[in-house]
Amino acid sequence: MHAALSELASSAAEILARLRTRAPRVHCITNTVAQAYTANVLLAAGAVPSMTIAPEEIAAFVAGADALLVNLGTLDAERRAAIGIAVGKAAEKNIRWVLDPVFIDRAPARAEFARALMGGHPSIIRLNSAEFTSLAGGVPEPATLMRYARENRTVAGLTGAVDLVVDDARLAMVKNGHPYMAKVTAMGCAGSALVAACLAVESDPWRATVAGLIVLGVAGEIAGSNSRGPGSFAIAIIDALHALDRETLMTKARVT
Amino acid sequence: MHAALSELASSAAEILARLRTRAPRVHCITNTVAQAYTANVLLAAGAVPSMTIAPEEIAAFVAGADALLVNLGTLDAERRAAIGIAVGKAAEKNIRWVLDPVFIDRAPARAEFARALMGGHPSIIRLNSAEFTSLAGGVPEPATLMRYARENRTVAGLTGAVDLVVDDARLAMVKNGHPYMAKVTAMGCAGSALVAACLAVESDPWRATVAGLIVLGVAGEIAGSNSRGPGSFAIAIIDALHALDRETLMTKARVT
Amino acid sequence: MHAALSELASSAAEILARLRTRAPRVHCITNTVAQAYTANVLLAAGAVPSMTIAPEEIAAFVAGADALLVNLGTLDAERRAAIGIAVGKAAEKNIRWVLDPVFIDRAPARAEFARALMGGHPSIIRLNSAEFTSLAGGVPEPATLMRYARENRTVAGLTGAVDLVVDDARLAMVKNGHPYMAKVTAMGCAGSALVAACLAVESDPWRATVAGLIVLGVAGEIAGSNSRGPGSFAIAIIDALHALDRETLMTKARVT
Repeated sequence: MHAALSELASSAAEILARLRTRAPRVHCITNTVAQAYTANVLLAAGAVPSMTIAPEEIAAFVAGADALLVNLGTLDAERRAAIGIAVGKAAEKNIRWVLDPVFIDRAPARAEFARALMGGHPSIIRLNSAEFTSLAGGVPEPATLMRYARENRTVAGLTGAVDLVVDDARLAMVKNGHPYMAKVTAMGCAGSALVAACLAVESDPWRATVAGLIVLGVAGEIAGSNSRGPGSFAIAIIDALHALDRETLMTKARVT
Repeated sequence: MHAALSELASSAAEILARLRTRAPRVHCITNTVAQAYTANVLLAAGAVPSMTIAPEEIAAFVAGADALLVNLGTLDAERRAAIGIAVGKAAEKNIRWVLDPVFIDRAPARAEFARALMGGHPSIIRLNSAEFTSLAGGVPEPATLMRYARENRTVAGLTGAVDLVVDDARLAMVKNGHPYMAKVTAMGCAGSALVAACLAVESDPWRATVAGLIVLGVAGEIAGSNSRGPGSFAIAIIDALHALDRETLMTKARVT
Repeated sequence: MHAALSELASSAAEILARLRTRAPRVHCITNTVAQAYTANVLLAAGAVPSMTIAPEEIAAFVAGADALLVNLGTLDAERRAAIGIAVGKAAEKNIRWVLDPVFIDRAPARAEFARALMGGHPSIIRLNSAEFTSLAGGVPEPATLMRYARENRTVAGLTGAVDLVVDDARLAMVKNGHPYMAKVTAMGCAGSALVAACLAVESDPWRATVAGLIVLGVAGEIAGSNSRGPGSFAIAIIDALHALDRETLMTKARVT
């Protein structure tokens, strides 16, 4: 492995170790489909999830959290209100957050809401190609992503067969993963939550994103060899996340 | 196997093959308990699920879908509003839909709502015996079901130890399945979603219903021999759905 | 095993047998994260779950139930309204209920709501140490718990490495369980639902609580030896609950 790349894998291993030691609280505003799976992924990795979206109580949960996830799935009026309160409280308390603009390519009103949210300066945005095109209007290539990241002062984590992670100056490509990851609902959502957990224990959001995607991708590869289909895969990846250690990460990480 | 029956199994295999090739979008208005499991069942079968019930965005999701599921579980005011919008948009865009009147035998207001919805002409209604009696007032026997189907210009899929599928002239009995299917929450709900997925790729709603119930039942039988209880069964049936091929379906289908 | 303690294990086995025979209906107002897992735990143990929180229909569901669970997770305005209606209907129909004040240590408004709910006289309150301190202001020790139970005419089930179950005069300590139980989301919530199911078939709420916690703890120990991490553990405990018999319970129960 190239020295610099080995350094990224090592950084991911350190971030994972910090997750286990510090057990950061991650508050997740996420869709009803993804809540349970996301919570189990966070617990397996070492973080402590909370999930309420009630406008009456979300400020208290965000104020006590170490990072925040804002996922736009099943975006009803209550979630919109909760997101407004949560992002405001996060700004007040200097709590960093991750935006996951799920399915904005399917509903124009949701895309518009996502664009407005970028004004609240998420540290990281995690999305797929169709969502990026809907959000930014361009082709999801490294140069376009980098311009978008610079203009929005954010890190963009574009996931697919190969994941691209860019800020205004750096690009990483994470090649870990397994085809079953696209056959399990909420896998992308849970990945964004894992990135938020990494952000809770790592000051550099670009490194946090790379770490979260490496950790999930490596766990996916291990799960792929321990499962008989997407049902057992979804379970095996949680077991793999829980068991993941530095040595396995360093051996299996494929990042360039 | 009787020639006509073998023909139904073959038809189910063709519908399943189309699901894998076309990956139809199925929008599901379903209860919060069933959302994640339903999404995973659809993904395993080859369809692409979406689940939002937000009144602000549901019209856009339905307009982009190939079929719609309306499940009445956890029927709150927001779901009622979403259903009204969704059924209206489906009529406008000629998108066909499936009604699953969950637990209408437990709440009179829900039964009344289901009866009103029948006026919106779902292509298929999937329900159990208690729900049928609550909806239609009669005993769930083939003759009663057929009269109900004719009067409401729908296909009725009545599930139980043996599934009955009727339209105004045809009756099929599907004998596949496993006792654990009644011990896993949302199995019936996921079955209705699978029927909706079949409807997305098959013009005849009676054949779509038969196909969906054969596919789920055969997957259930395979899962039954690969599990140690209802927990592992729920996972194994998703693996079995994903792996199901024409030969297995033709060998195991029991339809008369 | 001490005679009195063996008697508690035997009582748990009888309550479990009644669950299988009577299949009581348990209506659960619970958070969106826990709904599916809770339903599967109840089905595996022999009970019949329902989950709606819609204010329009909850009275009908509670009126037809044998016990009620009120869990305060994801406590939005709709849940607050539903809880008010449900507790009122339960009082009217003499249906007993269990309170699970999830995460009241994280949101002051939720703690206040929980304290008000105690005026509605739940038969049982199931909570952890942080939640008890937030609710009652004291240290979670047997004497404090017993005073709280006496003052509130309730049974308190405090879960942790060792579970304490007290009413105004009796104390049981349940030592069954597995560390993975803390790594699976909704395990505590599902445990409270199981206690509610036991309450549906047992007149003594203290015995019902002890039984529910023994049953879950023993199933957890069996699952621990059949799993490779928290993902497969969450599935294996459902299989174990479904297979649990009197002999296994009597052999493995550790209650003092």
